[in-house]
Amino acid sequence: MTSELEFIKALRAIATHPAARGLLDDCAVLEVGGETLVLTHDMMVEGTHYLRGADMADVAWKLVACNLSDLAAKGAEPLGVLIGHMLGDDDADFISGLKDVLAHYNVPLLGGDSVSGSGPRSHGLTAIGRATHVPVPSRSGARPGDALYVTGALGAAMMGFEALRAGSGADASAYLRPMARLAEGQLLAGEVTAMMDISDGLLLDAFRMAEASHVSLSIESRLVPIDAPQERRSDALVWGDDYELLFTLPGGTAPPVPATRIGMAEIRGFAPLFLDGEALINADGLGYSHN
Amino acid sequence: MTSELEFIKALRAIATHPAARGLLDDCAVLEVGGETLVLTHDMMVEGTHYLRGADMADVAWKLVACNLSDLAAKGAEPLGVLIGHMLGDDDADFISGLKDVLAHYNVPLLGGDSVSGSGPRSHGLTAIGRATHVPVPSRSGARPGDALYVTGALGAAMMGFEALRAGSGADASAYLRPMARLAEGQLLAGEVTAMMDISDGLLLDAFRMAEASHVSLSIESRLVPIDAPQERRSDALVWGDDYELLFTLPGGTAPPVPATRIGMAEIRGFAPLFLDGEALINADGLGYSHN
Repeated sequence: MTSELEFIKALRAIATHPAARGLLDDCAVLEVGGETLVLTHDMMVEGTHYLRGADMADVAWKLVACNLSDLAAKGAEPLGVLIGHMLGDDDADFISGLKDVLAHYNVPLLGGDSVSGSGPRSHGLTAIGRATHVPVPSRSGARPGDALYVTGALGAAMMGFEALRAGSGADASAYLRPMARLAEGQLLAGEVTAMMDISDGLLLDAFRMAEASHVSLSIESRLVPIDAPQERRSDALVWGDDYELLFTLPGGTAPPVPATRIGMAEIRGFAPLFLDGEALINADGLGYSHN
Repeated sequence: MTSELEFIKALRAIATHPAARGLLDDCAVLEVGGETLVLTHDMMVEGTHYLRGADMADVAWKLVACNLSDLAAKGAEPLGVLIGHMLGDDDADFISGLKDVLAHYNVPLLGGDSVSGSGPRSHGLTAIGRATHVPVPSRSGARPGDALYVTGALGAAMMGFEALRAGSGADASAYLRPMARLAEGQLLAGEVTAMMDISDGLLLDAFRMAEASHVSLSIESRLVPIDAPQERRSDALVWGDDYELLFTLPGGTAPPVPATRIGMAEIRGFAPLFLDGEALINADGLGYSHN
């Protein structure tokens, strides 16, 4: 089997359209008529992206929310979603969760496909949005001197996942039903120099932002807001599924939404990422990696 | 497990946006700015939509072509595709076929997602296009007195599939690498009263057009162009995968593309479809059905 990274590289080699610049780790940005569209597609597979036996209403919620989070990072207003769904035993639950999440975000279901199949189920979702600010924010715009911010707090999804695995009965909603920061993304789009969501973990996604922007990002771990016990702080920095927004602002600009300054962008040093002054040279072990 | 039809009905119940009018059996049509976008999403599953051990280059070709065929039926010009891909052993072949089909249709790859998983693989594709004519043709516009046409000839995909199953070595390209009638669809869009592609078989799709248009369609089987031995004519009428366009034109209008008149639309009688004068009351057995 190819690794996801190899596959992405091979796809990039055949994707020469400017809209595909962020292929497979970012949204497509497409000019149509007088509008700028933002498109994203994510897949979830049973056993890989959700636990076997999971409530399919939660699966539907997460499938939509993680795609909307991609639009949020572009400051896009969602226009609708298309769904690809492999039929199974609990489709009524899936439909129910889909209805809830679409109503929550006031996003229409536009179309899709359903298929029969055996084995682990898979589900795809395409979200289409309209950019509210052009140029559309990307992960590549951070400049030395910018301040680095994150919305919300990290670690709640990790705690939820662990509660679920342990069957402790503790609240797992942050893991099961993540929220996409759509309103925040739209307010930020015109202010930020770079923005992305941190679905794969703060450190890995910050590493990617630094690489894309050709800067070094310096993070002070004590500044990162944590929604988990203090002894889990370092875990919360590498755990994914929080769907918060990571962004940079020019020094002196106050963020227009509640957010916490966790570090800054500097002239590219010998590492893309510095955590409490320690250089992180490569992305291995920093978070959920597509390798 | 829910049937595809039940699932579609449940989805329709939560899809109230006008763009979702043709949900799951047709494209979404979305007004954005001054443009009319056409969106479609189809999934293919190993063992269900392609034979295990199939050349993944052909799978990629077909995945793209069948979605572009949906755009063709809307007279849309493709703007790009997003892909969802489950990794497997022969991803290089998949990429190669994807490259070929995108180059053939001059359609850019905009983005997507790749995932790891076990068991039968699935692949999703979203195609987005720009309508070249508004209102966008639909399957519901046929009027009594219209002539019914089909492009191309039917049965080659069936013969190709059977050759493949038998290992006869005969040409299977019509099955493996179908062609989307994009140019024809664009030329037809301003002329037709109704149009759809016949991916699920002529009779089933004509049945659906008749139902959607509230007319009866009357087909003379001897008029249907067949690319198969004459004794397979009746099979060719119900076999899918031909991806030709089925459309109606007002009486007296000549089709602007090569096409064959195979029947006509009449005031709705006691059946949606008449084949050589015989009433076909329900869709069972007419073709590949999503039941």
